Amino acid sequence: MAISRRKVSVIGAGFTGATTALMIAQKELADVVLVDIPDQEKPTQGKALDMLEASPVQGFDSNIVGTSNYEDTAGSDLVIITAGIARKPGMSRDDLVATNSKIMKSVTQQIVSHSPETTILVLTNPVDAMTYSVYKESGFPKHRVIGQSGVLDTARFRTFIAQELNLSVKDITGFVLGGHGDDMVPLIRYSYAGGIPLEKLISPERLEEIVERTRKGGGEIVGLLGNGSAYYAPAASLTEMAEAILKDQRRVLPAIAYLQGEYGYEDIYLGVPTIIGGNGIEDIIELDLTEEEKAQLDKSADSVKNVMKVVE
Amino acid sequence: MAISRRKVSVIGAGFTGATTALMIAQKELADVVLVDIPDQEKPTQGKALDMLEASPVQGFDSNIVGTSNYEDTAGSDLVIITAGIARKPGMSRDDLVATNSKIMKSVTQQIVSHSPETTILVLTNPVDAMTYSVYKESGFPKHRVIGQSGVLDTARFRTFIAQELNLSVKDITGFVLGGHGDDMVPLIRYSYAGGIPLEKLISPERLEEIVERTRKGGGEIVGLLGNGSAYYAPAASLTEMAEAILKDQRRVLPAIAYLQGEYGYEDIYLGVPTIIGGNGIEDIIELDLTEEEKAQLDKSADSVKNVMKVVE
Amino acid sequence: MAISRRKVSVIGAGFTGATTALMIAQKELADVVLVDIPDQEKPTQGKALDMLEASPVQGFDSNIVGTSNYEDTAGSDLVIITAGIARKPGMSRDDLVATNSKIMKSVTQQIVSHSPETTILVLTNPVDAMTYSVYKESGFPKHRVIGQSGVLDTARFRTFIAQELNLSVKDITGFVLGGHGDDMVPLIRYSYAGGIPLEKLISPERLEEIVERTRKGGGEIVGLLGNGSAYYAPAASLTEMAEAILKDQRRVLPAIAYLQGEYGYEDIYLGVPTIIGGNGIEDIIELDLTEEEKAQLDKSADSVKNVMKVVE
Amino acid sequence: MAISRRKVSVIGAGFTGATTALMIAQKELADVVLVDIPDQEKPTQGKALDMLEASPVQGFDSNIVGTSNYEDTAGSDLVIITAGIARKPGMSRDDLVATNSKIMKSVTQQIVSHSPETTILVLTNPVDAMTYSVYKESGFPKHRVIGQSGVLDTARFRTFIAQELNLSVKDITGFVLGGHGDDMVPLIRYSYAGGIPLEKLISPERLEEIVERTRKGGGEIVGLLGNGSAYYAPAASLTEMAEAILKDQRRVLPAIAYLQGEYGYEDIYLGVPTIIGGNGIEDIIELDLTEEEKAQLDKSADSVKNVMKVVE
Repeated sequence: MAISRRKVSVIGAGFTGATTALMIAQKELADVVLVDIPDQEKPTQGKALDMLEASPVQGFDSNIVGTSNYEDTAGSDLVIITAGIARKPGMSRDDLVATNSKIMKSVTQQIVSHSPETTILVLTNPVDAMTYSVYKESGFPKHRVIGQSGVLDTARFRTFIAQELNLSVKDITGFVLGGHGDDMVPLIRYSYAGGIPLEKLISPERLEEIVERTRKGGGEIVGLLGNGSAYYAPAASLTEMAEAILKDQRRVLPAIAYLQGEYGYEDIYLGVPTIIGGNGIEDIIELDLTEEEKAQLDKSADSVKNVMKVVE
Repeated sequence: MAISRRKVSVIGAGFTGATTALMIAQKELADVVLVDIPDQEKPTQGKALDMLEASPVQGFDSNIVGTSNYEDTAGSDLVIITAGIARKPGMSRDDLVATNSKIMKSVTQQIVSHSPETTILVLTNPVDAMTYSVYKESGFPKHRVIGQSGVLDTARFRTFIAQELNLSVKDITGFVLGGHGDDMVPLIRYSYAGGIPLEKLISPERLEEIVERTRKGGGEIVGLLGNGSAYYAPAASLTEMAEAILKDQRRVLPAIAYLQGEYGYEDIYLGVPTIIGGNGIEDIIELDLTEEEKAQLDKSADSVKNVMKVVE
Repeated sequence: MAISRRKVSVIGAGFTGATTALMIAQKELADVVLVDIPDQEKPTQGKALDMLEASPVQGFDSNIVGTSNYEDTAGSDLVIITAGIARKPGMSRDDLVATNSKIMKSVTQQIVSHSPETTILVLTNPVDAMTYSVYKESGFPKHRVIGQSGVLDTARFRTFIAQELNLSVKDITGFVLGGHGDDMVPLIRYSYAGGIPLEKLISPERLEEIVERTRKGGGEIVGLLGNGSAYYAPAASLTEMAEAILKDQRRVLPAIAYLQGEYGYEDIYLGVPTIIGGNGIEDIIELDLTEEEKAQLDKSADSVKNVMKVVE
Repeated sequence: MAISRRKVSVIGAGFTGATTALMIAQKELADVVLVDIPDQEKPTQGKALDMLEASPVQGFDSNIVGTSNYEDTAGSDLVIITAGIARKPGMSRDDLVATNSKIMKSVTQQIVSHSPETTILVLTNPVDAMTYSVYKESGFPKHRVIGQSGVLDTARFRTFIAQELNLSVKDITGFVLGGHGDDMVPLIRYSYAGGIPLEKLISPERLEEIVERTRKGGGEIVGLLGNGSAYYAPAASLTEMAEAILKDQRRVLPAIAYLQGEYGYEDIYLGVPTIIGGNGIEDIIELDLTEEEKAQLDKSADSVKNVMKVVE
């Protein structure tokens, strides 16, 4: 019985999609198919070829192709959706949701038709609602449709804490619940430096500043770049989740998961601690929350529900 | 005696510079200072911060900062120059050379004043002449000023051969002399698949097609992207050369080196096989060439000399 | 469709088997089952547990178990045989062959019964004959039974050449045909430093000395250790072959393959250049040999045939 | 200014020393000098050569030499001591201490005379007292003499917890204070799975069993092996500490550090949370302890003090 390689398709060949494709290839997790719309097919092929030409030098043995044809994605073990538009000046949030939701539906139909057994990882914003949209359109079981937000949010938090304490990022952990960005519910008491709760090492005021900076972490990059948004850390976050699935690692990672009663919510995609492995979301971990945390999470859930209404 | 980290400065925070910064950080080769002009300081900081925020997830422990202040580069172990403009429609080659040469001079003065003991790696095109320009301006010994072209050219060649034979890129090697791109002198007889000369595996006609595709490899990506040029494979190539220097590996790599009699040339930077280690270019390997190869190399050298005249 | 991990079983938990298990786990190529005889079950479990306890520190996510029960190997994607005795003082070569051949048969029956679709990689000496023995006993198609010798022989050769030239091992390649050790047929003309034929860099006399040292490379380690034989480089060699199969890389690697007419031989396992991928040996590369090389290879084949007779 | 490689000397070429040498070389952290007594010089050379012969295959570019001559260790950036005897049946603990203490003194004199600016990492048991012995003999400042125990103890704990919860080892952390093994003081409240305190996931009784298993983790391996003790996880632990120093990472790691008032102790080497970087132990982190924890730590300190008396 011949052994064949894993296959990952990345939908959307913008900076995040392309960087994700490269990171997956560099780790030899799978061969990668990078997909964009027909208009963008040539640039997508150009990016894929440029990456492939890096492979002899970096010593990775993964194929990368660019395409606009979903047939090339057939039989993917994992599909990552980064497609969608960014909010432009003057565009209402509802317009953004409507547009990206339409993109999710069209993309999902294509994915499902060519890879009916795959798992889908969603990055497109507003990510909670977009993951819900993909879930509904796909008809997939909930464990096979997952949104990314907490890995990125905690990555930013960990970076800021490592700088604050002048310590290795390897020893800093963070923990968030709820929506992405502004709606993020940080669980500081579950965040550590070398296992030591951050509350013992940093003053509450300073911690609050760092949390606030984390909440606005996407905006900080947008503000600095002037013309575009973050893609390195988002791509790294998608790659870590992809690795957990492709290597069946049963990692404990924050993810946007479909809730059916967990944390008291029904029929909603929300950021919670999960166990991610070969089956996608293999479990959701329920924690006791303080009243304040629960109130924040309720607010986050409300906010997500409001966006979800636009989707429907 | 405390051990401190290596430090690399990357001048030019465009796609190639930024990707090089990331690759060096990912391999934990050094802390990285990414430098661009004052106008671009904020985007440069944005890119550096976004990369840094990927570090907790990818598990690398390197600092990355963006700046326009050369004081931040002080004491670099290695400086990589990717700054410069790309040729625009309607721009003569001489205008390109004049503009980039001016940039090289200004950048080099800054580098030398803050890191007088460093080694400099140059990518800016036309790379042979630009490396010469940096050499002259720096006053550095020749072994500490190096240009990149052959690692990238052979990476493309290896990629195409691996596809042709359906073999791992890990087992394909290539060999070039002379200038970058059109002026490249391929030594097919020194190019192998698993040690087997390619001439035994691929017909001369098909090999010639692949050589031709390699020569135009940069243009192929430009043509596909529509708006921009290759950066993944160039960044990987710079990173491999940087690693050879920072880890004192004594790798055998093609590089643009200053010749003083080697291959019969004087006072010229030209692509030749070199040994790269902690001292920069530690040796140049001289090969016997066939008459045809020598004629091609002469042509390549002439072409470089012509561009060098514009520099002076 | 859940993604599950690859599974590799390593038969024989001596130093080579144990080190191979660790290297495969470190690279997260697969979960590993380390098997030895019932008498050795506890030490085998001890080694496996000690390795597993290294995993949180080294950051690899592979399971390793020690056992004497072949049921634990069920469904392996790859099985590596390192079991067997070493030649002891006073033991005739035929006795060694007879004993190890018996071990091969018993081990193979167990492997086949629990993993009928697997691929088998053999290290046990005399490896050409032992691979033949496993092939016969397994009833497997020839591409799924492979012996290791050339990767190790060339690794030693490459090490010696790198030392001789004071260059990085990454840029040295070697090429051998024929049997392991004394029967090795080196193809110096296909061996390079940075793509440059070694014959251009090292005198014929010195090259011959290095070839001779390579031939006796196993004995050199035995002589130094005093009590035991090499295991680090053999384990690394097995791991590289395992990676080529498990990641379907189509590497060009020397391997002991079953010949049916190739190089003019029939019904013999002999070291030749092969393409190794997800199907095991996917192809054998036939080279034109000089008369001298062919004569050496004939001698090597005769020697293997003689041992194979003892097996039968 | 040429860049040269880091250099690490490993004293003691038994299984732990040899495996540590290999792991450091594999990560290209430094060139390695493996040292043993003159009687063992040949086997030490054999092991070093065998490892070196793995380097072309594994693709690492570090030199490894075996020697009994301390002159070869001159100018080491780091020295790791694994030398010493293991306790044999019938040997009193005091005899063990006396013998190993004598070895520490002799080894330390050699190290100091050839590498007066180095940092020393000690593994030899009883490790707290042996680190103290090396500290006294070396005359080095306290931050440059460090003992290993907590990284290994927590590695075992993390392995057992990962198995208990069927989760990735990457997401499990542990925390210990005090002496090695039996004297270990686990801080369960600072031990987590994905940031979630273990107390919320595992019953106190089961946790206590796992702590007990961890305390006896070294003995468990000894019992299984029958003839020898653990070396894979100890080597991985030393390598992680070495990496923190050689890459100046400022990791938060448990280490045996010299206390001068911290935790209320004076003139003792004891396991505490530390920050490890290019200066060795750059800081000691003091935590508030519960009365029970403090009582356990007192007991552990007493036990160490008793052994230290034998040393003096």
